[in-house]
Amino acid sequence: MRATVLVRPKDGILDPQGDAVRGSLQKLGFDVGRIRVGRVVDIELAAGDSAFAREQVERMCSELLANPLIESVEIRLDVE
Amino acid sequence: MRATVLVRPKDGILDPQGDAVRGSLQKLGFDVGRIRVGRVVDIELAAGDSAFAREQVERMCSELLANPLIESVEIRLDVE
Repeated sequence: MRATVLVRPKDGILDPQGDAVRGSLQKLGFDVGRIRVGRVVDIELAAGDSAFAREQVERMCSELLANPLIESVEIRLDVE
Repeated sequence: MRATVLVRPKDGILDPQGDAVRGSLQKLGFDVGRIRVGRVVDIELAAGDSAFAREQVERMCSELLANPLIESVEIRLDVE
C-alpha cells in the first residue's frame, strides 16, 4: 500500500518560500495570487489493512513528518 | 481557480531526504519501505479557463517550479 502525505503551512502562518515563489512568478509575467509551498511525502507501507495503515501514517505525521502547531496534514491512501 | 502542483524526484534519482525520513521512521518502529520527499505548491490563479490555467501552470513548472531533468510534476486544478 502507498500513502501520500501533503504537509502544508496552516492558514495564518507565514510562508516566506511561497512569497518568494509568488514574487518570482510575477516577475516572469504570470498572474498569480497567494502561493503556499509545502512538502509531499510518498510512503510505501507494509500494512495491508486500510484502517491500520491510516492510523500508522497519522502517527508518523505527529511523531516525525509534520509540526502540528504550524502545519496541516492531508493523507491519501492508494491500495495497490 | 486553484492549482496544486506536486513536484517529486524522478524514479532512479537519489533522494537523500527520503532515505533520511525512512531511517528515522524505522528507528521509531514503523514498518515502511521506500520513501520519497518532494514539494507541494498551491497556486491561486486569476485565469478562469481550465485549459488556459493548465497551460499557464505547465509553463510555471518548466520556468521555475521544477527541474525536468530530475523531477516529475503532477498538476491538479480545482475550479472554485
